[in-house]
Amino acid sequence: MSGRMSRGTSDRGTSDRGTTEMPSGRPNDAQLAPLDLSNFLRRHGPSLVDFRRDLHRHPELSYQERATTDKLCNWLRANGLDPVVLASGTGVVCDIGAGDGPIVALRADIDALAMDDMTDSEYTSRTPGVAHACGHDVHSAIVLGAGIALQALDDLGRLPGRVRLIFEPGEESVPGGAIEVVKEGWLDSVGVILGLHCDPKTDLFHLGTRVGAITSASDTVEIVLSGPGGHTARPERTVNMVDLAARVVQEVPRRFAELAADIGTTRLVFGALHTGDAPNVIPGLARMRGTMRTPSRAMWDAAPDVLRVALEQVLADSGAQWELVYSRGIPPVVNDADATTIFDDAARLVLGPDAIVATEQSWGGDTFAWYLEEVPGSYVRLGTHDPARPGPRLDLHASTFDVDERAIDVGVSVLVNSAFLWHERHPAR
Amino acid sequence: MSGRMSRGTSDRGTSDRGTTEMPSGRPNDAQLAPLDLSNFLRRHGPSLVDFRRDLHRHPELSYQERATTDKLCNWLRANGLDPVVLASGTGVVCDIGAGDGPIVALRADIDALAMDDMTDSEYTSRTPGVAHACGHDVHSAIVLGAGIALQALDDLGRLPGRVRLIFEPGEESVPGGAIEVVKEGWLDSVGVILGLHCDPKTDLFHLGTRVGAITSASDTVEIVLSGPGGHTARPERTVNMVDLAARVVQEVPRRFAELAADIGTTRLVFGALHTGDAPNVIPGLARMRGTMRTPSRAMWDAAPDVLRVALEQVLADSGAQWELVYSRGIPPVVNDADATTIFDDAARLVLGPDAIVATEQSWGGDTFAWYLEEVPGSYVRLGTHDPARPGPRLDLHASTFDVDERAIDVGVSVLVNSAFLWHERHPAR
Repeated sequence: MSGRMSRGTSDRGTSDRGTTEMPSGRPNDAQLAPLDLSNFLRRHGPSLVDFRRDLHRHPELSYQERATTDKLCNWLRANGLDPVVLASGTGVVCDIGAGDGPIVALRADIDALAMDDMTDSEYTSRTPGVAHACGHDVHSAIVLGAGIALQALDDLGRLPGRVRLIFEPGEESVPGGAIEVVKEGWLDSVGVILGLHCDPKTDLFHLGTRVGAITSASDTVEIVLSGPGGHTARPERTVNMVDLAARVVQEVPRRFAELAADIGTTRLVFGALHTGDAPNVIPGLARMRGTMRTPSRAMWDAAPDVLRVALEQVLADSGAQWELVYSRGIPPVVNDADATTIFDDAARLVLGPDAIVATEQSWGGDTFAWYLEEVPGSYVRLGTHDPARPGPRLDLHASTFDVDERAIDVGVSVLVNSAFLWHERHPAR
Repeated sequence: MSGRMSRGTSDRGTSDRGTTEMPSGRPNDAQLAPLDLSNFLRRHGPSLVDFRRDLHRHPELSYQERATTDKLCNWLRANGLDPVVLASGTGVVCDIGAGDGPIVALRADIDALAMDDMTDSEYTSRTPGVAHACGHDVHSAIVLGAGIALQALDDLGRLPGRVRLIFEPGEESVPGGAIEVVKEGWLDSVGVILGLHCDPKTDLFHLGTRVGAITSASDTVEIVLSGPGGHTARPERTVNMVDLAARVVQEVPRRFAELAADIGTTRLVFGALHTGDAPNVIPGLARMRGTMRTPSRAMWDAAPDVLRVALEQVLADSGAQWELVYSRGIPPVVNDADATTIFDDAARLVLGPDAIVATEQSWGGDTFAWYLEEVPGSYVRLGTHDPARPGPRLDLHASTFDVDERAIDVGVSVLVNSAFLWHERHPAR
């Protein structure tokens, strides 16, 4: 029996949405029969969209996700689940199924970004300066929906193994809420961890998957320069501080990349530079902050030392004193081959043979990396862009970011089937 | 009769100071007989040092010189003069002598700088963050002393023509208190204006003089860049704002100098640059401020247009929008030949034949320039450095700047003799 999803039209409304139906298709081999969630999604899908829009209207910053945490707990309890709030105060974990076999963990992140929501929708953010511009509202709705479906299956004695829902707080912070989840022991007994992330570069009804590194490491860098200061009439008698800070911004990333070339590629990009108070006084202090990103795990390890050498070389004869404050962020997300195959197979079952597209390693980072330092797993890109829709592709972190909400049904179906497939292939002893 | 000053030793005290005496020397020709102020300075010199130290202890910022103004008025009145406070509230003008002939104006500036006083003296600043690090306390004491001497001469019927003392407020601001003095009509009937400025690069008992431009023009420049902003993971999708601001600081001064090469030399130096709030967000805005200086009057006129072209060239393909806020500051101080000869001759009479040293045009600016846009005059450098004293030469605007106070007697003698010489050479019709 085929359970492939239909591709109903989207009006971004909650009623007339495309739901699962039974297209004619090639017969699936018995071992790979998909779970058909069409009836479940017809009943629950509109509520999941409502849930997502509620989070979108009321976004919360990292570690301030109290209302979001309450809403998740209420919805989970209302559907017969037993959520636990993280000891750190926000974020939720929820186990489904009994026994002591290995657990499939399904992860969502729940926090929003410190920026204005410029979407022109009825569910645009009601909180100035905070926006769900990275799709965490969608991730939360998907994992919630998957949890409700899996609990319903467990109620009927049809769940092949344990599942844990992880709603992670503070993903947009460094080093991120994943550290809390790990510290509180929620990866104990986890056999695999699976995560989806909205991707406007991938079309709707498709999944971008990749074995190995799929995101980059991201660290935070602060450089402080100090000199004697002076008068802008006589820069030659002192350290010309604004000029020197500009030289650091221009030359250090280049020097750093050259020194790192044999280890891995890098992106050192500055986000802030502050120096001076008056137009006619050469300041004594300059402070700049940025991120160091690399797709390479080895380069991540070497980065602080290499950056120090680059600074030494660029600033050698400058006359200034300098300090580097290097804050470790997150390593790359490195996907396990077996876990990624689970996603590939589940998505092809649900969406058809062309569902999987290869995806590039990005320069962005995700705290999902911390889980993969502990257990195997996979992090994949969920297509949210309808190519039939006019206008340019939106970008994550853009103030106008939004998704085609049909991606929620896709996400629920893919996660539920992935959890099933993993348990089928890793039967508890 | 020779009136050359002796070079008594300095202990920076108020009692045992070197004063004028009668050395044997070559006979002066009758027309160039100096006024011998040795007795005057023996009586008044210590009080002038006390006055200077009082100002040094209680420095006041531009246009806030209320206590300084009160002190000047009190001292002038106590010596029989009739001071007038400027209509703008601070600063003093005081006329000496009667009639309607041309006036010799003697100018001092009275404000202090917004910086800490790090001098290790009993008269160090009692006001944190404000310091007389540019010698305006010394200039005020000198013009006060010259005024008292000239008034005493007038009382005895020995003043050959009118003299006006100008104690200018807000010299450290742009465009400066000289604008107020001119606007209030205090240059009417002025035949020449003379000014001294402390110079630690010139030795004590010497005067640095120069015909033509002796300081530079100084304007204030603000450049604002704006772009769409973005994520530091993906600088290629937006305007990499911190990098672009750094490029402006590095390249625009160079491009500006190249474009200006046929007109005059320039110094575009930045004092402040502010952009961005977070290490991982590419900001949408950058703001930088600096000064444009040029020794050339023609270049000063052309500077705003040339800078605009330089910005257009550097930012042409940047994708950013930019704005230039160009604030006119002050033109160069351009010394009149005749007025400078008055200083040269007076100083040689008072200090000896080697008193005059050639001095370079500096990159600094002085609001004295505004007077010379109206009337002829000369602005000269008064040596304040004792070469016998150990340690490096101090710099103007340095937090440890101080002077050898014997320069006060020198200044009084030179100004009084200069005023006399000018009137002798320009007899009222």
